[in-house]
Amino acid sequence: MKDEEIKIRSWLKANREKGIKLLKKMVQENSTRGNESSTQAVIIEKCRQLGLKLDIWEMGGDELKNHPAFFCDRENFEGNPNLVAVLKGTGGGKSIILNGHIDVVPVGDEASWKHDPFGGHIEDGKLYGRGATDMKGGNAALILAMESIIASGIELKGDIIFQSVIEEESGGAGSLAAVLRGYRADGAIIPEPTNMKIFPKQQGSMWFRITIPGKAAHGGTRYEGVSAIEKAVLAVKKLQQLEKTRNNKITDPLYKSIPIPIPINIGKISSGEWPSSVPDVAVIEGRMGVAPDENMEEAQLEMESCIQELNEQDAWLKDNPIKIEWFGARWLPGSLQNDHPLMNDLVNSFIEIKGKEPVIEASPWGTDGGILSNVGHTPTVVFGPGVTEAAHDADEYIVLEDLFSASEIIALTILRWCGSGSE
Amino acid sequence: MKDEEIKIRSWLKANREKGIKLLKKMVQENSTRGNESSTQAVIIEKCRQLGLKLDIWEMGGDELKNHPAFFCDRENFEGNPNLVAVLKGTGGGKSIILNGHIDVVPVGDEASWKHDPFGGHIEDGKLYGRGATDMKGGNAALILAMESIIASGIELKGDIIFQSVIEEESGGAGSLAAVLRGYRADGAIIPEPTNMKIFPKQQGSMWFRITIPGKAAHGGTRYEGVSAIEKAVLAVKKLQQLEKTRNNKITDPLYKSIPIPIPINIGKISSGEWPSSVPDVAVIEGRMGVAPDENMEEAQLEMESCIQELNEQDAWLKDNPIKIEWFGARWLPGSLQNDHPLMNDLVNSFIEIKGKEPVIEASPWGTDGGILSNVGHTPTVVFGPGVTEAAHDADEYIVLEDLFSASEIIALTILRWCGSGSE
Repeated sequence: MKDEEIKIRSWLKANREKGIKLLKKMVQENSTRGNESSTQAVIIEKCRQLGLKLDIWEMGGDELKNHPAFFCDRENFEGNPNLVAVLKGTGGGKSIILNGHIDVVPVGDEASWKHDPFGGHIEDGKLYGRGATDMKGGNAALILAMESIIASGIELKGDIIFQSVIEEESGGAGSLAAVLRGYRADGAIIPEPTNMKIFPKQQGSMWFRITIPGKAAHGGTRYEGVSAIEKAVLAVKKLQQLEKTRNNKITDPLYKSIPIPIPINIGKISSGEWPSSVPDVAVIEGRMGVAPDENMEEAQLEMESCIQELNEQDAWLKDNPIKIEWFGARWLPGSLQNDHPLMNDLVNSFIEIKGKEPVIEASPWGTDGGILSNVGHTPTVVFGPGVTEAAHDADEYIVLEDLFSASEIIALTILRWCGSGSE
Repeated sequence: MKDEEIKIRSWLKANREKGIKLLKKMVQENSTRGNESSTQAVIIEKCRQLGLKLDIWEMGGDELKNHPAFFCDRENFEGNPNLVAVLKGTGGGKSIILNGHIDVVPVGDEASWKHDPFGGHIEDGKLYGRGATDMKGGNAALILAMESIIASGIELKGDIIFQSVIEEESGGAGSLAAVLRGYRADGAIIPEPTNMKIFPKQQGSMWFRITIPGKAAHGGTRYEGVSAIEKAVLAVKKLQQLEKTRNNKITDPLYKSIPIPIPINIGKISSGEWPSSVPDVAVIEGRMGVAPDENMEEAQLEMESCIQELNEQDAWLKDNPIKIEWFGARWLPGSLQNDHPLMNDLVNSFIEIKGKEPVIEASPWGTDGGILSNVGHTPTVVFGPGVTEAAHDADEYIVLEDLFSASEIIALTILRWCGSGSE
């Protein structure tokens, strides 16, 4: 084994330029929602060169669209395929899914970028561009890890099931489609941007919309109306209390350094059309964090009864109740035991490469790990080289040194997990 | 005098159909902002028939646009003239301005109207349509009053300066233009929809916009950001306190039955673009009520220092202060002493026609009375037949009986105020 590890590590050290070239090519293709195909093509060609067995398909169909974990408002997946590329093992080993999403969030205000979002500019050891960190850098690390094993002539016992999926940023329909297509494994790694931390647990999340009724009136006689904004303020306070109650219940030590493990984020409010009128409706939209071991439906019920309580406390709301809906994207939480064998292999590989213990935490956001573990029943850990803070931001970047470390750690983990022929 | 009064009253009683026909014609022409000309044409033709001296002009010019009381975002007044029509007196009497605006607010959601907004349908003594109450009905009462005097062959000593102005609903630029053109008088009546109450005082108002900064972050780590919505809630509370403080200072008995004499109405709030993000800015827009005897600038200063206080109380706002702007429409308050001779004449005429004391109150909204009294130095009272609650609403209507009573009361007031040749 030691010998195989040395081969892999030397190959990776000798082929860094290859990795940079690959990542640059991926970043230079815009893969925002609906435009994923050209980056996907780069990856497909790479997997073809590596001799993997390709499964390229356009998502859709009733099984997917009717699945309870399908939360997606996209009508059309045509022309933007999902990809699964398999490196078949010799048998008798554990299989592993390496999952990365290829979609990226929009560039946002381009004026606030110093570097071209699709340039892949490199400066001071960092590669810049939309998706560099979230998560084309992580995907590149996966491909490098696979290539190092193949190039080193190592034959794995277990299968590698590499997945390059769409739709993660919008709720995970791509990974769900892969699960429904039959891809499950004994373990999975998702190299989302964790700052090289290991996240065995991930916060889930879902979106809510709260509609608060008021009664219109002229502003000069506002006492003849009921301000939806004033009632919305009550709802905001109620949600703040609920957030406190829910977070007080979180005792998992993985969350010890996180101020609010499962936040309730009020992301939007909109009410009123005219400064001189009493607004007759207010709409709040937000994101509810869900604990790794929590059930989505139970979390929903908790918020619903909190709003119901407010409806009962307020004379106006009693007759004109606030309504709550669950809409749009949703990410299932994920949870892997700290002492799961996959964790052991990953942690030991980390220590071997980095010479120190990894930071193990719970992620503050959902990933496709929720789909893989809850729907696909595949134990999943999230670990990647990207810079958490740089994700979704202007001048997103990745530290190339971390990308290379991550590819070494992941390659070693695969070797340990899947086992190799010469063992 | 008694004889003239009888003549006037019998003419008005005999010519009710004439009044209804006129109002119907006015309501059937849409006179929303930018479309005032066709209703104005109906009034111009009527005034021409009455032999009044017409002054028809398109507003504009630097004197108007640079005037401190000009709050108007309309670029172009072309094709939609203002009208002043004068009935010259024989001399030695007091002059009176009869002011009505011809513009109406938009129809709104037409589906919520039972009657055609421009139909002028009559049912159960009510005439329906946009503007019927606010304030084409009041304008019709003014014209009927003038016609009754002319038709009765009465020669007034003082001048009647009848004004049919545009732009009242958007801040009063039409009446301001008339004042700047030189039209001032010893007194003025504005028949806004007061439910036959007499309003010697009117609440002024102005619009404010408050911009509250936050700091964006991902909702899953919302503690890394600062929610503009949470800070906006602080601002809402602060404005609620300010409203209380300001209203506690109002001791005028005219306000004794009004729960909030000078409300601060928060009409709009908007913040955030994405449920999963911490919103980085919130914008509140509203209307600040101004007391009849209050100075607009002092009221502004009071709100500005209240916001400044909040900025100093909050650690985040200290470095990222909330900003306040005054924008859009503005209505000056108006105030006439309760025992002003014009009030006496109006109150006595009311008692004579209605056989009871009038209700005297302060209006909860601004009118062009603010412009006439503050800029034009013309003592102004607001009294009209329209239904306050029906203004701006679907199925706006006027009670025709009130229109006829108002025209009698106004005609008698004119007679008393201006004096007549036969006295």
